[in-house]
Amino acid sequence: MSHVESDVSRVVEPAELGSGSAVLAFDVGGTDIKSALFDVDGTALGLRRTPTPEPGADLPERLIARLLELAAQLREEHPDVVPAAVGLVVPGIVDEVAGIGVFASNMGWRDAPIRALAEEAFGLPVAFDHDVRTGGWAEHVLGGARPYPDSIVLIIGTGIAGALLLGGKPFTAGGYAGEVGHSPVADEPVCACGARGCLEAIASAGAIARRYAEQSGERVDGAKEVIERAAAGDEIAARVWNEALDALALSLAQLTAVVAPQAIVIAGGLSRAGGALFDELRARLAARLSFHRIPDLVPAQLRGNAGILGAALRAREIA
Amino acid sequence: MSHVESDVSRVVEPAELGSGSAVLAFDVGGTDIKSALFDVDGTALGLRRTPTPEPGADLPERLIARLLELAAQLREEHPDVVPAAVGLVVPGIVDEVAGIGVFASNMGWRDAPIRALAEEAFGLPVAFDHDVRTGGWAEHVLGGARPYPDSIVLIIGTGIAGALLLGGKPFTAGGYAGEVGHSPVADEPVCACGARGCLEAIASAGAIARRYAEQSGERVDGAKEVIERAAAGDEIAARVWNEALDALALSLAQLTAVVAPQAIVIAGGLSRAGGALFDELRARLAARLSFHRIPDLVPAQLRGNAGILGAALRAREIA
Repeated sequence: MSHVESDVSRVVEPAELGSGSAVLAFDVGGTDIKSALFDVDGTALGLRRTPTPEPGADLPERLIARLLELAAQLREEHPDVVPAAVGLVVPGIVDEVAGIGVFASNMGWRDAPIRALAEEAFGLPVAFDHDVRTGGWAEHVLGGARPYPDSIVLIIGTGIAGALLLGGKPFTAGGYAGEVGHSPVADEPVCACGARGCLEAIASAGAIARRYAEQSGERVDGAKEVIERAAAGDEIAARVWNEALDALALSLAQLTAVVAPQAIVIAGGLSRAGGALFDELRARLAARLSFHRIPDLVPAQLRGNAGILGAALRAREIA
Repeated sequence: MSHVESDVSRVVEPAELGSGSAVLAFDVGGTDIKSALFDVDGTALGLRRTPTPEPGADLPERLIARLLELAAQLREEHPDVVPAAVGLVVPGIVDEVAGIGVFASNMGWRDAPIRALAEEAFGLPVAFDHDVRTGGWAEHVLGGARPYPDSIVLIIGTGIAGALLLGGKPFTAGGYAGEVGHSPVADEPVCACGARGCLEAIASAGAIARRYAEQSGERVDGAKEVIERAAAGDEIAARVWNEALDALALSLAQLTAVVAPQAIVIAGGLSRAGGALFDELRARLAARLSFHRIPDLVPAQLRGNAGILGAALRAREIA
């Protein structure tokens, strides 16, 4: 198995997941799969990243076969840890009630009965859910959203995704809620999704780097470098970063007016761009509102492991 | 009592409210109070409008005194109908759990313990809630939102207000959710609330008439006349109406991406501007989205009586 990157150092402490059943957990992304076996103390055993199979017509079947291989390897390494259930989270539009992967552009599937396929293959109950919503759930149970019954978790990285937690529970709308990244905030530019003026096309880390490169003719190593160049006086970088902050503040103001969460928890690469992000967003959000109840803006705590921790939580709920 | 306008013709049929306890219901607005006694068949007896007392420091007390007068009159007219509870709905920010009128610009109160005052005065249990959310609840139970567990009810009139119904229940966020009219969609104009670019400042019936008058120098008799002038070739009217439709479509697209309701129910004066509104909004909403699940756009059914019907429903829930 190529490109196996051990990642145990970035898992939260076992006590944070807490004790419960042993479970297998998989966080499947467009590029790689995170897999681990969680023991009864909540320790992630053998946590690793491996490449996701190439997209194609039979990806659901090939993906499940890959997950079975990963599980067999984990079981072999830890023969005394016997999982009682599987947690499996994937990107795209996910109907977690029906167990269907409705659509995922980077996986290429439509209406794939992934939970049924996985249950048949594993012979275990499978908790199947959406990667971002499950990560939001983990932030709610274990991380930055813990104090707040009503919160929105935003992941700002290559793209922008969101999860609504209302009344202490995920609000999913059949898998369609929380697409903050593809909520339009302007009339341009055209977004990869086909709509125009999506927040993601202006304010994601990916968009910040791309827009700077387009406007300056210079390649940069991600949004972090654009922010550094802006701080150093680069006018193009300053404009791109300023437009991203304005678009984010506008979107946060809309979420505040309509959903009125007690907190907006920000995760993903851009959330680690430094304190400047949170201070800037707080000031710009306040400037866009009047009588509204301004939410706390707080950093996520689980970093890249929210998805797999959420998958483990979901698996324990059915174990 | 001055300006008593009987309004019985616009109440829905008794069968639509259905049978239950007899209750008193009050829908208090900035200008007038709607009051009625609902009998056990659900018929609204003595439904009328009377002026709201002038704003001032002791408005809560004067308002409750007025409601007692109205109740005495209704009881005198219908001595055999004995109410078991009172439903009372008011505008502004309302904490219906605590029974507090948190804030209302047109009433001038802050943190007014209205439910406790009313219960003491009436000697009956009082269901206290927000006018728009209660109207949305009535549309969910009796009207246009009935088929949909997840819907957003938008009232587009002098202002723009909204109510979220999620999983078949109002989602309130302590009274702060649903302020679609004060969700910013642009950088200008300044809104009466103090923020800028609020949807209400561009797309409410009030804003359409005001913006046309400002740009043309001609007074018009409401948004309906602006729409008629636009259809007749008036370029300023066409621009104002086009900007309102674009702002509404943008806001509906944001609601679709983030909350993903199955339906958006549109009430208020502008919703009766003719079929053009719904056809235009459907086309412009579809043009702003891609993979999203496009909600049904449906007209409200209860017209101006949603608030008082909702107040009666709420009163019956505690009778």
